[in-house]
Amino acid sequence: MDIYISGVGMTKFGRSKDSLEKMMAEAASSALKEAQLERVDAIYLGVMNVEEFVGDSNFATLLADTLGLTGIPSTRVETASSTGAGAFETAFYAVASGHMKHVLVLAGEKMTHLPTAKTTRILSEVIDRSERRYGATMPALAAMIAQKYAREFNLSPLKLEDILAQAAIKNHSNGTFNPYAQFRKTITKEDYLKSQMVSYPLRLYDCAPITDGASAIILTSEPTPIKVSGIGHATDTAAVRHRTSFTSFNSTKEAAQKAYTMAQLNPSDIQFAEVHDAFTLFEIIGTEDLGFFPPGEGWRALEEGITHLRGRLPINPSGGLKARGHPVGASGLAQLVEIVYQLKGEAGKKRQLERAEIGLAQSIGGLGNNNLVTILERSDRKRIVKEGWSPDYHPEIRVSKKSSIPPPSEGVGILETFTTLYATPEGFRSPLTLGFVKTEAGERVMACNPDYRSPKELKMGKKVYLKTREGLYVFEKFTLWSRLKHWFKGSPKSS
Amino acid sequence: MDIYISGVGMTKFGRSKDSLEKMMAEAASSALKEAQLERVDAIYLGVMNVEEFVGDSNFATLLADTLGLTGIPSTRVETASSTGAGAFETAFYAVASGHMKHVLVLAGEKMTHLPTAKTTRILSEVIDRSERRYGATMPALAAMIAQKYAREFNLSPLKLEDILAQAAIKNHSNGTFNPYAQFRKTITKEDYLKSQMVSYPLRLYDCAPITDGASAIILTSEPTPIKVSGIGHATDTAAVRHRTSFTSFNSTKEAAQKAYTMAQLNPSDIQFAEVHDAFTLFEIIGTEDLGFFPPGEGWRALEEGITHLRGRLPINPSGGLKARGHPVGASGLAQLVEIVYQLKGEAGKKRQLERAEIGLAQSIGGLGNNNLVTILERSDRKRIVKEGWSPDYHPEIRVSKKSSIPPPSEGVGILETFTTLYATPEGFRSPLTLGFVKTEAGERVMACNPDYRSPKELKMGKKVYLKTREGLYVFEKFTLWSRLKHWFKGSPKSS
Repeated sequence: MDIYISGVGMTKFGRSKDSLEKMMAEAASSALKEAQLERVDAIYLGVMNVEEFVGDSNFATLLADTLGLTGIPSTRVETASSTGAGAFETAFYAVASGHMKHVLVLAGEKMTHLPTAKTTRILSEVIDRSERRYGATMPALAAMIAQKYAREFNLSPLKLEDILAQAAIKNHSNGTFNPYAQFRKTITKEDYLKSQMVSYPLRLYDCAPITDGASAIILTSEPTPIKVSGIGHATDTAAVRHRTSFTSFNSTKEAAQKAYTMAQLNPSDIQFAEVHDAFTLFEIIGTEDLGFFPPGEGWRALEEGITHLRGRLPINPSGGLKARGHPVGASGLAQLVEIVYQLKGEAGKKRQLERAEIGLAQSIGGLGNNNLVTILERSDRKRIVKEGWSPDYHPEIRVSKKSSIPPPSEGVGILETFTTLYATPEGFRSPLTLGFVKTEAGERVMACNPDYRSPKELKMGKKVYLKTREGLYVFEKFTLWSRLKHWFKGSPKSS
Repeated sequence: MDIYISGVGMTKFGRSKDSLEKMMAEAASSALKEAQLERVDAIYLGVMNVEEFVGDSNFATLLADTLGLTGIPSTRVETASSTGAGAFETAFYAVASGHMKHVLVLAGEKMTHLPTAKTTRILSEVIDRSERRYGATMPALAAMIAQKYAREFNLSPLKLEDILAQAAIKNHSNGTFNPYAQFRKTITKEDYLKSQMVSYPLRLYDCAPITDGASAIILTSEPTPIKVSGIGHATDTAAVRHRTSFTSFNSTKEAAQKAYTMAQLNPSDIQFAEVHDAFTLFEIIGTEDLGFFPPGEGWRALEEGITHLRGRLPINPSGGLKARGHPVGASGLAQLVEIVYQLKGEAGKKRQLERAEIGLAQSIGGLGNNNLVTILERSDRKRIVKEGWSPDYHPEIRVSKKSSIPPPSEGVGILETFTTLYATPEGFRSPLTLGFVKTEAGERVMACNPDYRSPKELKMGKKVYLKTREGLYVFEKFTLWSRLKHWFKGSPKSS
């Protein structure tokens, strides 16, 4: 059974004085109007953390009421920062069940009214408790992934900086053509370099902003010009330290595999994509995980202009999360709204892509552990799927696993990656140096280092000395003194 | 396409030292074991407010990880206090879409670790903001509904007290036979009368307790002995004052109508039911809204023993929310677990019903504005649906509507119902007298009265004088003085 899109809508993203329900009603009205509907069979409402951002609960009911659609079933759906895509997927199955004909998917978040440290703390709650208690934030974890990516693919700090700047510059440039974008001005490499360090090596311009906004889509079982071709959804471990890879996301790969299989499409069939660039590097990793480019080659495609607005495979024509803005609950659905605009040729002269018959959106929930991939297609696109079609996308999925080895309390380890976090959450001192340390027993732990003030003093791949203090792991430079201490105590090898 | 249940599980409800994820994992393990499954195609996770009760977000991911099911799509679903039923409905459509075969529905809440005033405040967030700012809590709104019910159906305060006591006594008695129940001791009318007044006329024994617990169900497209026959879901206005009826819930009636229609069953076909008795009177109203008894007659059925464990139509054989406990996110699913136990004849000698081939569960979200009705049936039950079947359930649904008349700031009104709240939320003085006042323009407003200390001083249906103070409506006895003031100022009739 094919499922179609009959209407879309969104508010301008940015700082809004409107209440969350007012923004969501605005997006919903546009979508309902385009679909020429006054009522729908159900509402699926995506909002990540309305409880703490706004102080409300039972929000699905409030929205049905605000829209004047009292009576209609209304259900809230949440998958962390991929919530908008999660609500779309949930609604897709509801229509595909045949029990519903027209369904409104509505997503939004209101975030700008709170102090940044509080917003940072609320956003950090998506992180595994064991890592959050070190003060780890989303930028801190992303920064450690960026460091690891650079090391694994032999990019110097300067080269990494240049690539990340290019991603930011490209998406800001795209954003200038998007009337719904939070930021509509180009930035230069100089602007990028001048921007504040959030968590080394990530700067303010590497991070999606704090944003208010809402988006809406009507799904229907009646044929329209836009078809949903494939959806995939996958999770990964709550804690980042249990991952087998720090430079790709299993959850994107698994979700992509499912979406490509459902759509009977290969990565080479995709003409453009909206990729979850909550952090600049995540766009690059995303284009690799989705099978567009080989691992470690995504940055080259960016550098060569392949992913630019007028390149062979435009990524984030909307400006992405970086420039359009990132109201966490809304972004996953806003990506799909952009794809619909492009597929319908309604993106405006400057933003409209030439080839826009098949588009893909990838949305990341949490730190890469609740991801969705959705493929939309023009219904009038002719394609013949050969009998016995099989996908040519076979990503290496190295399943993450919690170790059952109890980690040692003291000992030698290898500093796999680290960051120095400057924008700490409520209750943590800045700067805060965090790292992932692999112990001799092969267990990875998060550790902090209260002494280092500058990331320049640390090197990935070097030995460090690990100890515990107040229930937290602390790492120190591996010096003669720590070596002696270690030698006297004996190494706590896999016990 | 028929959808079946292949496994259920739940924790003992009550005060637990376990973390929420541990409780949910326990419930999930039982369900997976019964279904003989190690993996499922997706998890739908119901939790109402994990953000504020536990301080976590991205909980669907954490659960997939905790269960060792990393990779599998995991989505959180929320519909206020009907969340467990909402997650079940969402999963039902996912399986009915044909895209999934085996799905785990998992619901839970952890509440007992917080101070009661904080829990009360968190639970109050499901109430419309405009009513919440008066200090209205769920018990306060339920109390005003109880008062109105008594007035509409001519029950004296003593009679109302007796009926409510009977509901509590029945459910506590049923709970004694349920090993999963929070309370397993009978109570007497004396105990009931001795219990603390929460919000006049509702006592502690009228209100479901604060509870920790989790429940789980596996839905599958493969035939099993238990079939899902019908599901219905409907909303009502966020604010209670916009309702057309204070003595029944439109959202239950609409949800029931949909469920009966899908199941091709009538109320008279239902052999037993789990009804959302968050407050004793809600069970009575529920049995009327579901078409078991005429409006205003539910209390008689209770009095006559019809709804008792050995009556003709047992209601809440599990002990209901009252005695089994009410972990808000879990209750809607726990009701369905109880129905499965009964249908399979596994409820234990003392609790097992004789006639248990079709059971119904009704779950209330918020103050009756996000309700679900679910009907389960034994697959081996023979029944022939006649050609051209049509339901004989035609409830009067009086659609709630927001008025567009701006309410007056001062003037005369009628006190429709009121309560004196003793267990106030954080930040409100106790006792707090609240009422709904109908103005001369026909608009209903919530109002408080800081002067009255005892509910005995007020009477429903009497004139009161309404004024505003610090943005809130305040009502006063209609005295000669207020009459004069009113006369001098002129009456603010519909303007």
